[in-house]
Amino acid sequence: MNKNDFAPAPPMGWNSYDYYDTTVNEEQVRANADYMAKNLKEFGWEYIIVDIQWYAHHTGSRREQFQYIPFSKLEMDEYSRLQPDPVRFPSSAGGAGFAPLAAYIHSLGLKFGIHIMRGIPRAAAHAHSKILGTDVAADEVADPSSICGWNPDMYGVRNTSAGQAYYDSILKLYASWGVDFIKCDDICNTNLYTEHPYSARHEIEMISTAITRLGRPIVLSLSPGPALIDKAWHYGRYANMWRITDDFWDDWDLLKNMFCRCELWQKHVSRGCYPDLDMLPLGRLGKGFGKERQTNFTCQEQRTMMTLWCLFGSPLMLGAELTLLDEWTLSLLTNKEILSLATPDCRPWQIHRDETQAIWTGCNETDGSFYVALFNLSDKEKEISVSLEELFFCPYVRNPNIKGQDVIQLRDLWKDEISMFTGSTISQSVKPHDCVIYKIG
Amino acid sequence: MNKNDFAPAPPMGWNSYDYYDTTVNEEQVRANADYMAKNLKEFGWEYIIVDIQWYAHHTGSRREQFQYIPFSKLEMDEYSRLQPDPVRFPSSAGGAGFAPLAAYIHSLGLKFGIHIMRGIPRAAAHAHSKILGTDVAADEVADPSSICGWNPDMYGVRNTSAGQAYYDSILKLYASWGVDFIKCDDICNTNLYTEHPYSARHEIEMISTAITRLGRPIVLSLSPGPALIDKAWHYGRYANMWRITDDFWDDWDLLKNMFCRCELWQKHVSRGCYPDLDMLPLGRLGKGFGKERQTNFTCQEQRTMMTLWCLFGSPLMLGAELTLLDEWTLSLLTNKEILSLATPDCRPWQIHRDETQAIWTGCNETDGSFYVALFNLSDKEKEISVSLEELFFCPYVRNPNIKGQDVIQLRDLWKDEISMFTGSTISQSVKPHDCVIYKIG
Amino acid sequence: MNKNDFAPAPPMGWNSYDYYDTTVNEEQVRANADYMAKNLKEFGWEYIIVDIQWYAHHTGSRREQFQYIPFSKLEMDEYSRLQPDPVRFPSSAGGAGFAPLAAYIHSLGLKFGIHIMRGIPRAAAHAHSKILGTDVAADEVADPSSICGWNPDMYGVRNTSAGQAYYDSILKLYASWGVDFIKCDDICNTNLYTEHPYSARHEIEMISTAITRLGRPIVLSLSPGPALIDKAWHYGRYANMWRITDDFWDDWDLLKNMFCRCELWQKHVSRGCYPDLDMLPLGRLGKGFGKERQTNFTCQEQRTMMTLWCLFGSPLMLGAELTLLDEWTLSLLTNKEILSLATPDCRPWQIHRDETQAIWTGCNETDGSFYVALFNLSDKEKEISVSLEELFFCPYVRNPNIKGQDVIQLRDLWKDEISMFTGSTISQSVKPHDCVIYKIG
Amino acid sequence: MNKNDFAPAPPMGWNSYDYYDTTVNEEQVRANADYMAKNLKEFGWEYIIVDIQWYAHHTGSRREQFQYIPFSKLEMDEYSRLQPDPVRFPSSAGGAGFAPLAAYIHSLGLKFGIHIMRGIPRAAAHAHSKILGTDVAADEVADPSSICGWNPDMYGVRNTSAGQAYYDSILKLYASWGVDFIKCDDICNTNLYTEHPYSARHEIEMISTAITRLGRPIVLSLSPGPALIDKAWHYGRYANMWRITDDFWDDWDLLKNMFCRCELWQKHVSRGCYPDLDMLPLGRLGKGFGKERQTNFTCQEQRTMMTLWCLFGSPLMLGAELTLLDEWTLSLLTNKEILSLATPDCRPWQIHRDETQAIWTGCNETDGSFYVALFNLSDKEKEISVSLEELFFCPYVRNPNIKGQDVIQLRDLWKDEISMFTGSTISQSVKPHDCVIYKIG
Repeated sequence: MNKNDFAPAPPMGWNSYDYYDTTVNEEQVRANADYMAKNLKEFGWEYIIVDIQWYAHHTGSRREQFQYIPFSKLEMDEYSRLQPDPVRFPSSAGGAGFAPLAAYIHSLGLKFGIHIMRGIPRAAAHAHSKILGTDVAADEVADPSSICGWNPDMYGVRNTSAGQAYYDSILKLYASWGVDFIKCDDICNTNLYTEHPYSARHEIEMISTAITRLGRPIVLSLSPGPALIDKAWHYGRYANMWRITDDFWDDWDLLKNMFCRCELWQKHVSRGCYPDLDMLPLGRLGKGFGKERQTNFTCQEQRTMMTLWCLFGSPLMLGAELTLLDEWTLSLLTNKEILSLATPDCRPWQIHRDETQAIWTGCNETDGSFYVALFNLSDKEKEISVSLEELFFCPYVRNPNIKGQDVIQLRDLWKDEISMFTGSTISQSVKPHDCVIYKIG
Repeated sequence: MNKNDFAPAPPMGWNSYDYYDTTVNEEQVRANADYMAKNLKEFGWEYIIVDIQWYAHHTGSRREQFQYIPFSKLEMDEYSRLQPDPVRFPSSAGGAGFAPLAAYIHSLGLKFGIHIMRGIPRAAAHAHSKILGTDVAADEVADPSSICGWNPDMYGVRNTSAGQAYYDSILKLYASWGVDFIKCDDICNTNLYTEHPYSARHEIEMISTAITRLGRPIVLSLSPGPALIDKAWHYGRYANMWRITDDFWDDWDLLKNMFCRCELWQKHVSRGCYPDLDMLPLGRLGKGFGKERQTNFTCQEQRTMMTLWCLFGSPLMLGAELTLLDEWTLSLLTNKEILSLATPDCRPWQIHRDETQAIWTGCNETDGSFYVALFNLSDKEKEISVSLEELFFCPYVRNPNIKGQDVIQLRDLWKDEISMFTGSTISQSVKPHDCVIYKIG
Repeated sequence: MNKNDFAPAPPMGWNSYDYYDTTVNEEQVRANADYMAKNLKEFGWEYIIVDIQWYAHHTGSRREQFQYIPFSKLEMDEYSRLQPDPVRFPSSAGGAGFAPLAAYIHSLGLKFGIHIMRGIPRAAAHAHSKILGTDVAADEVADPSSICGWNPDMYGVRNTSAGQAYYDSILKLYASWGVDFIKCDDICNTNLYTEHPYSARHEIEMISTAITRLGRPIVLSLSPGPALIDKAWHYGRYANMWRITDDFWDDWDLLKNMFCRCELWQKHVSRGCYPDLDMLPLGRLGKGFGKERQTNFTCQEQRTMMTLWCLFGSPLMLGAELTLLDEWTLSLLTNKEILSLATPDCRPWQIHRDETQAIWTGCNETDGSFYVALFNLSDKEKEISVSLEELFFCPYVRNPNIKGQDVIQLRDLWKDEISMFTGSTISQSVKPHDCVIYKIG
Repeated sequence: MNKNDFAPAPPMGWNSYDYYDTTVNEEQVRANADYMAKNLKEFGWEYIIVDIQWYAHHTGSRREQFQYIPFSKLEMDEYSRLQPDPVRFPSSAGGAGFAPLAAYIHSLGLKFGIHIMRGIPRAAAHAHSKILGTDVAADEVADPSSICGWNPDMYGVRNTSAGQAYYDSILKLYASWGVDFIKCDDICNTNLYTEHPYSARHEIEMISTAITRLGRPIVLSLSPGPALIDKAWHYGRYANMWRITDDFWDDWDLLKNMFCRCELWQKHVSRGCYPDLDMLPLGRLGKGFGKERQTNFTCQEQRTMMTLWCLFGSPLMLGAELTLLDEWTLSLLTNKEILSLATPDCRPWQIHRDETQAIWTGCNETDGSFYVALFNLSDKEKEISVSLEELFFCPYVRNPNIKGQDVIQLRDLWKDEISMFTGSTISQSVKPHDCVIYKIG
């Protein structure tokens, strides 16, 4: 089992968090899956992810005070393993867990994922609950000094055989449900421990080991960011994707900042290994947070975001409530040429970046396609230029078909227009926060 | 109630930790109290302090793995308040708490103190236990993201009226037992949170408020160190003593390092306000840690320690098992002149410090007594000198009786010898790690 | 020679910087001295300080680019010692240095001070200039890796006998001129070296040694701030005053921030030892900076500043151009009762501080006078209260005459009004950013 | 001009520093070049680099005190440009500079490189020396607050057109001499400024611009390390090689530590872009440092070093005095198969690393060759194993000829032996600090 085979391209899907926060229920998940199967599947979208606290009762009931109610009731089996809240996920009742929901999603030709917090429930540790297949109890597994700074549910797991047994036991459960994707939180950057933000390193390895033992592919996604660049090798060795940013929302400053992060991580995109730019806050957002809205991003900004995410090769996870998707947003998500960039075969490379603009190339090593994107990061319309000579700083362009030609064809991927170009410098006027991306030659 | 009146001089007593670790029992406490009453009380020693985890069952039973067994059974009443382990403290059975033990200690003319961890038991929060006199339960009081890095028993208390109510309820209980002294831990420097080591600031204030409401003096001691020099005003405003070092043991490097700390905190000793140099690791030590031994300090080092602690004005807490005290150690603890330095009336002042020596003065502002101590911090015998002119850098020496005299009397406080001195520089050969202290004039 | 005798009270005077920047000339200095002698001397103001770059030619000539013109001509004697620019200070011509100006100031019954940068002129090091009384040249004295981050004139001095010889040589020169006060810059916090901000520790000691060798009092003032609280003992041992803030200007946020700094340093004010809150930006300011103006402080803020500076015991250095002083400002500077607080005999103590208010006491240990000041730090008028009980947290109040009295007299020092007070709490409405200070009993 | 074309493979050569420190002279340089041309050139070794302070007089004359004598005489032309010390480099006399020496080296079929410090001579700034082709002088170019922490010769250059003009002028001079390689120091990590270690970012860009303007390839090498991983894109954009370590010497701890650094930088090796592991301290070393010796590395350690440097793709710069080279060392430097790994076509990849061992693969994307190296980092002989499955975590292995074969050929590159392997795990006993490297299939 090579974990890189689990995700030959950046995973694409929908995640419940941006619209529902902690409150999503089974009916809502099914509705979004139905929409995806009908409208998005053919474009490559396939994952349906249930995000945080599916195991908690009364989620959202004290939202003005707490996102995660401390010491509240969590659904748990006798082996210290969390189970779906049967009120929100009726099909899980009687010990079925997420198996019925996963089966439904699979029946649509889609894949099913869940969010987990690293660790073992605090309640299990205090209750000395059993660990499946062992003689020890949860108090031996839990590390009382390892907690999450923002969610009160879990203790970290000790780096012992008992700890491995616990992770084995939950992964077996998830596999039995039919889980295809796990987004594990509080593990990529354990930010409570500012001097030891990689304090859960051993838990990454233990979860990876548990997955390997399953004999069944489960994509492993690590949160939250920002991931630590000096741990890049370790992320790529054990996980499929890892968040390289804090929580991303529909705010231009956050989007602009992504260009720095993409510069930093561009060399680390490869088959089965994806630095993750976080969910796409498009369409309808924020209901569970008490501030439902249409995304604050302008159309230009949305285009910039989609172009960067695809060209960089980030996983693509929709934050929008799909059943409320408008035509414009749908068009963004179904541009096949843009989406085709999101493959590890297409190597991203930053040519230039300053406060006002960024220029990136993409080079598909398999079919030789070559792309250049011009991003206007300033607040004014702006002429952006790149010389052909600069393009050849990209180390992936070996024998591009543009060298030595007098006239070069440029295909605008968003406008679906072709223009012919002569000279030594490509130059284009770009609207504020907007971008242009060309396929060259 | 002015908390400064609770400790007009640095508290002097015995603490169970250095010998017993977490395991001390009632019989042992009584035996040490008996010894103190008989042999030390007349010299000012008066506190008997039961240190950490008197509320925990089976302490010490897994010492090779844990100093504090995670998720183990803690004795607790229905109001989330910890109670003594009745196995180790039989007189506490039936809800009596520490009242019988405190009464016994009071009957000897001594005072009684206990150690507490800041916060509320984790077990109480998870069980939603009641809080005395309120409608809320422990889950509302406990802050799940505030823990101790080295002890697993408690959650921090929220800065709310419910939180204050909890602290009021435990202080009332302690007052009802007859507690005279509280050593509160994980509060002076919350070192798990390296960027926010004063994260429990509000808990210091809440405990202080709870004490003030009692109408009964309870000395408040804060641990662990090192205390933060930029919070000096806050410590002095709310507490009686605060640890300015990490845990101190019988190691010369640690002792030598105290001279830096004393330099730093010398201006912050005043009536009711004592920077704390930690327990005196003298005599028999370490049984509970599995390495019982006579102190590793040489006689010279012990003299240096006693001189510095007294001259600086630190609280004096004996770590030795008193019932095993030898004659030499007893003589150290019963030198009345040395002990008389430990009063806020006697202002300490560092004249000089380098890697090889330190020179301090003490100036009693009430009776005008003036002292100079010469410490040899090097590993070789050394002549240490101080000019009379340098002594006058001490800002507390207003009209010393030494100015203008031809002959000055020096009284060696440890040797109890008098010599007459002429000239402008006091000079004395001092053994490695040893010191000489003179009363001048 | 005990340096503490050089400044038995916080120095009070005028400094050329706030109005003239680097450009002050002899005529202007004399005019300010004349004003002081005539109008301020009787209230205790006595120092006239010529601030930075008196040795540089063409100062201010490229102000839009540089405050300190790099590699510009500095007036220097054959022994690597800077001399006054003879264009701006005509009386210095022919090698007289500042002697004639100092003599004039002394003739008015005032004292004379100069600013220096720590170190030796870079130009001297590169030219291998001589060092008085030695065989070595400036290249042996200068440390090429020790520079100032904001002024290009000097290299730091090595910790060698040649280095000491250089400092001896310049101090002898200054003494021969009649200098009474030296403000040494880039030494209190060498902020270019963020991890070693006390990198010039040895230069403080060397300058102190050079002064001691003179047999003549010269007050030593260290800049810039913020001073390092963990070096408090060292500052007090070697200097008379040290800046505890960055450069202070007429901005409320900076003034409000001083309350934190005063909390931090309150214990470190003693005879000859003064934490320094920086110049008083009152009256006419900023001509040399190209933005001449009346101070931006409101009258309320000015009162707050004067009260805090005096009660805390800071040195008082006027930034205003004295010849342009208005009546209101003059009245602030000539309130004898307020100024009388500025003595080390009057011990400051913070009773309380939060974001909206601060309460301080002052206690004169010599005559028993007791003061309380109520500061409104908020932007709204506010009732500020302090209980008598709280006042007794001040450790300096031993036997105040207010204990046990039914009626207590309060004397408002700014209004010069007396009121009688009964009850347990003093309470007063205070305007935004304003204060009230009472003498009690 | 694409700078990546200047160094299609990692540069290989000799550097004067490890043996001569600051003292190398022309005769010695020629002798080493002669040796290289005769014995090493055919194996790819081609650069002869004159390291630091070739422009300084009397280098090494005060070695017990200074490595770089402060304020000493530097040879400089009228345009603020440093020239070779004519005493040590006689052919440079009369303004010829390094042209004669470069011509000689070129005549041997080798290339010539020099070391420079970033910036402009301090002496030029203080003397207001001219800048070629401009109206301004050196005082306008030099930034007096930008210095090197360990070498006193230069000031940093301002980010202005005058600054660019200065860099243009020196690069033109170097090009006129025939320089092929520049090792620029104090620029990759400006470690004096601990919070701004990339403070010379603009100087990197300016030197790169100056080179581009030459129309002549000059390889740009940046020192000292450790380079900043978050600036990886910037180094690769403007330079050919950059030091990723502090100074490297013949010490096992330093060598072991290189495995961490190689993990960190492995993705950043590409054509024209080489993270630099520093010189190879082999053979005779240290004469100029006053401790001439044979390298302290054992033969095993030397083999490990050569294997790692080549497999990783680091530049290879010999520190040994070549005229004293022994047979063993020569054999290390002339193993063609090992040296053949040092090409950007061969992509390095770490499979595993812990405290005791490291496993790396190399995959030549051009010819499909596949290598695995087993490093024993422990102090005992050790069996090191790697499964075939693990090898396929390497993202560069697309169609290796080992998949699906029953018997696989392993060729030991150091022993030049072939063995046949069956099974799923390659396992080999390796001596302490030694390594084995196989070509597979």
